[in-house]
Amino acid sequence: MSYEEKFMKKAIGLALKAELKDEVPVGAVVVKEGKIISSAFNKRECSHDATAHAEILAIQKACKKLNDFRLVGCDIYVSLEPCVMCMGAILNSRIDNLYFGAYIKNGSISASEIAEKSNLNHKTNIAGGFFEEECSKIVSEYFKNKR
Amino acid sequence: MSYEEKFMKKAIGLALKAELKDEVPVGAVVVKEGKIISSAFNKRECSHDATAHAEILAIQKACKKLNDFRLVGCDIYVSLEPCVMCMGAILNSRIDNLYFGAYIKNGSISASEIAEKSNLNHKTNIAGGFFEEECSKIVSEYFKNKR
Repeated sequence: MSYEEKFMKKAIGLALKAELKDEVPVGAVVVKEGKIISSAFNKRECSHDATAHAEILAIQKACKKLNDFRLVGCDIYVSLEPCVMCMGAILNSRIDNLYFGAYIKNGSISASEIAEKSNLNHKTNIAGGFFEEECSKIVSEYFKNKR
Repeated sequence: MSYEEKFMKKAIGLALKAELKDEVPVGAVVVKEGKIISSAFNKRECSHDATAHAEILAIQKACKKLNDFRLVGCDIYVSLEPCVMCMGAILNSRIDNLYFGAYIKNGSISASEIAEKSNLNHKTNIAGGFFEEECSKIVSEYFKNKR
């Protein structure tokens, strides 16, 4: 299993934890120099907080750990393509690389499009589609069960 | 002074508070039924947190107060046009109306463009340019002094 796959599997495990708590199943991991420095899963429902997505929580924890709003040299692994808010947070925190699992296929603006239209000097590289079938199924099954 | 101007003046006051703490001067106020339910100013530097923009902090406080991630029936007043992250948070929290002061003129994707490209059923109305000269000057003077 590659380096990227290992951390993506960790993000998937967190997504499954969110699902157990009846949250939209998304997990995120922030990595620096090959080590996980923070991780989180979506807690929007249980915390009654619109901003409590996995990526935001993981970024907040990583900033706290490094005592810096700039997460330079850090990568983030997310089981699902980030929404607009989370992609904005990834760019604002100067994360180097974003790796995500399933693509969002609902016609929303993509993470790549947001990154392209950002005015920040910093650029975040984006690679999607890791374990796509698995990641996609986790989200679709969750919504199927909710209906 | 109109209803909107009154709350925008409050947001401007918060921006000036941020400036005193050497933070990029941005203030935000969340209003429901004519009453302020939360307010915040940018704390990115002092809290070492990339997500600690005025809008995110005000939305988090408002969610906590209403015990709901949906800020239905709420409006937000911000002294500066929201960045991608904050505009995403405004949409995610289902805020009804966004009023902002200065337009961001740096070629970044606009708040309106983000809202148009959102896939959420909820729509947030956007009105910018309140006290534009004053709001714009607060930010430009801050960056001029930093150089």
